[in-house]
Amino acid sequence: MSEGNFAMPRDWRALFADTGAELSCAEAIRARHARGEHDYDGPLPDAVLSPTSIEQVRHAAEICRNARIPIIPFGAGTSIEGGVTAPAGGLCLDLSRMNRILAVRPEDQDATVEAGVTRLQLNAHLRDSGYFFPVDPGADATLGGMAATRASGTNAVRYGTMRENVISTTIVTGDAQIVRTAGRARKSSAGYDLTRLIVGSEGTLGIIVDLTVRLHPIPEALSVARCCFADLRAAVECVTMLVQLGISASRIEFLDEIAIGACNRDSGLDLPERITLFIELAGTPHSVQAETTLVARVAADNEAEEIHWASDPDGCRALWRARHAAYHSCLRLMPGSPAFSSDVCVPISSLPECVAETRRDIDRSGLLATIAGHVGDGNFHVLFLPDPKEAGQVTAARGIYDRLVSRAIAMDGTCSGEHGIGTSKRLKLIEEHGEGGVAMMRAIKGALDPHDILNPGKLLP
Amino acid sequence: MSEGNFAMPRDWRALFADTGAELSCAEAIRARHARGEHDYDGPLPDAVLSPTSIEQVRHAAEICRNARIPIIPFGAGTSIEGGVTAPAGGLCLDLSRMNRILAVRPEDQDATVEAGVTRLQLNAHLRDSGYFFPVDPGADATLGGMAATRASGTNAVRYGTMRENVISTTIVTGDAQIVRTAGRARKSSAGYDLTRLIVGSEGTLGIIVDLTVRLHPIPEALSVARCCFADLRAAVECVTMLVQLGISASRIEFLDEIAIGACNRDSGLDLPERITLFIELAGTPHSVQAETTLVARVAADNEAEEIHWASDPDGCRALWRARHAAYHSCLRLMPGSPAFSSDVCVPISSLPECVAETRRDIDRSGLLATIAGHVGDGNFHVLFLPDPKEAGQVTAARGIYDRLVSRAIAMDGTCSGEHGIGTSKRLKLIEEHGEGGVAMMRAIKGALDPHDILNPGKLLP
Repeated sequence: MSEGNFAMPRDWRALFADTGAELSCAEAIRARHARGEHDYDGPLPDAVLSPTSIEQVRHAAEICRNARIPIIPFGAGTSIEGGVTAPAGGLCLDLSRMNRILAVRPEDQDATVEAGVTRLQLNAHLRDSGYFFPVDPGADATLGGMAATRASGTNAVRYGTMRENVISTTIVTGDAQIVRTAGRARKSSAGYDLTRLIVGSEGTLGIIVDLTVRLHPIPEALSVARCCFADLRAAVECVTMLVQLGISASRIEFLDEIAIGACNRDSGLDLPERITLFIELAGTPHSVQAETTLVARVAADNEAEEIHWASDPDGCRALWRARHAAYHSCLRLMPGSPAFSSDVCVPISSLPECVAETRRDIDRSGLLATIAGHVGDGNFHVLFLPDPKEAGQVTAARGIYDRLVSRAIAMDGTCSGEHGIGTSKRLKLIEEHGEGGVAMMRAIKGALDPHDILNPGKLLP
Repeated sequence: MSEGNFAMPRDWRALFADTGAELSCAEAIRARHARGEHDYDGPLPDAVLSPTSIEQVRHAAEICRNARIPIIPFGAGTSIEGGVTAPAGGLCLDLSRMNRILAVRPEDQDATVEAGVTRLQLNAHLRDSGYFFPVDPGADATLGGMAATRASGTNAVRYGTMRENVISTTIVTGDAQIVRTAGRARKSSAGYDLTRLIVGSEGTLGIIVDLTVRLHPIPEALSVARCCFADLRAAVECVTMLVQLGISASRIEFLDEIAIGACNRDSGLDLPERITLFIELAGTPHSVQAETTLVARVAADNEAEEIHWASDPDGCRALWRARHAAYHSCLRLMPGSPAFSSDVCVPISSLPECVAETRRDIDRSGLLATIAGHVGDGNFHVLFLPDPKEAGQVTAARGIYDRLVSRAIAMDGTCSGEHGIGTSKRLKLIEEHGEGGVAMMRAIKGALDPHDILNPGKLLP
């Protein structure tokens, strides 16, 4: 079960006994920890340790460093790029029990949490404070995991991603040192930006054990427009125009007609099964009202065929719950499919062409695939659902995927808007950053983790 | 003139002739390039090269790598932390002739410029586009230099710093490779955040040769409040309250009564010489109007003694020109003073206490010092103006400065909000980041610049 150059100990329990953390070598536990939100099992870790304190993590890292054992950090297990598999075996560090909210500081609009706190847990805790934490990937991921993959979601168009919303992290290094990457000042020009280096490093440069994140005031007023279009290009051009006009939307989401159908069936909705934009305006009652008029005009200019407004909180919430569940709803369209998703992001001016060319490529192939995404950022996902009974569909889907990534990179975009690289996209990293950029990343990895024990086999090709 | 372990060539002109770039060894030229906006000369470089293309920079870097010659990148020479001095001698790379604006893309709200383009040059170019570049340190620095020091200025409270406004950079590495650190997508989770690592690295990890920056729509309406206070603490508490209320101010600036007096004399203004806040509201005419009422109420609640509103563009511009000139105006209060400035930034809730304790410490000493700053971010500058004729004043000022930095760090703040580290603050980096954080920075430096030719003696202690 383990491979590579790592010497594996015989008695895992004895080795980690002094840490005081619970350890399991049961196959079912190990298997659960090698699986993200994809439906295949990756290579399993040899053992799963569940620390409850920074000191336990540090102690475990020290043992792993001395014995050259790979460490795979694990949060909620919601990676869809193979981020939690154990290609070289080793120790899975399940941080989900480190789930204390350490401080909420409304006066500074920040909060400090342990890495295992999830986004819904933090927002439930904040409920009556007037503040919320906006970054919202589909899954209820841990904040440590979200920081590690530089995650985002529907709110990024207004509030940014984990890059903008992580103020500081505490990490345990591959050398078993505890390092806090920054203070809590809003800005600093004191030295290299270690926080931004750790955010998105997918556990390969340090294990995030706690983090300080930005909170945002809950907007006074919300309104959600649902606009249907006959034509995909018109929908995307509507988005491009709204972004260029600088409307202060908090979400601009796109679902194609197939994804809408899947949401209807799964979430008990009854939306027209058409190409649809969801545009959420947030602000003061007056600013929302003013932008409502603008959105209606731009949508009409782009041949929207129906605009429906929801401004009651329950109606908005139901819609966004369905949107967050869309990935799973779409997966159910083809049970047993070796489904996979793309995650490209392009400059907004290239979005209409990128989406349209991709749709043509899919249509030519006869494959089932849905398109959905955070189009206000230029980010969209194609969920490929090859039929497991049709030979050749997986290969065809992979071909479309590869062409999509190359298309996005040629448009000065990225292969990964928010899902990270994991094991799945490592070769795409070279296509995107070139040998020179990847060489810099390798040099950094070598310098900060000379024994290559931190999540080996991830991110770097 | 050169020291350290670097072998210095005899004939600089011959060595760099093939690059095609102009080279000077004249002492006056070298001296001008070893001086920032402080009034002392640092150690001089041995030669100054003025490339006009990326290829010339790359070629020069190759020669320097082979001969182990330090490279000191130079933009507009506006560092105030000794960032452009040459403590180990070597080659100053004056990038100011690389000043072409390569692309402006209103549809993507970004622009790509060579490193030597200055902020005023870019904004003059953008004048009729409806967009502007908001980051505004006092000086008309180059965008390459601003990126290298992670600079900010009065607009950061709304628009962020260079951290948030640099999308991508092209660098020449210490190994003479050309690397583009990212594409132009609004977000990406593809690999380590090389852009954010280069931003703030002060030329020690790579030479920025061009960069892509975010543009922002020019607000429809502006209004500036000037509020006078009898008491420093009341002024700062007013700021804290405004920030916590989430007003969308584009600037919240503080000048003490001495700084106001200096601005009056220098900029032909006639402002009351009192502790003063300048609060700029920007947005739609309606949102500005709504927030005007809010600002007036909060100011009154905090015992503001006078509120004056300016909303004509010329009036606003004159005020901000004076604010940007304040540093130089204050320097003229004590001609010949070995003046120096602090640049701490603290979490906003700690700002009133940090400023008040610092003022008490200054008052006890009898020194002349002004306080001014971007208080909406928790960032303020004390300009120490020790009397050159009074023995002991420099030492006293240094003592206050050291206590101020320690105070800010103890409050979870930073020793440098926007000026960088340069040569001046290298020891403070350990106080702020600890040995562990600095060890990570050293490891990164060692990995990306193994021969230590990129701006040696800067940033790292």
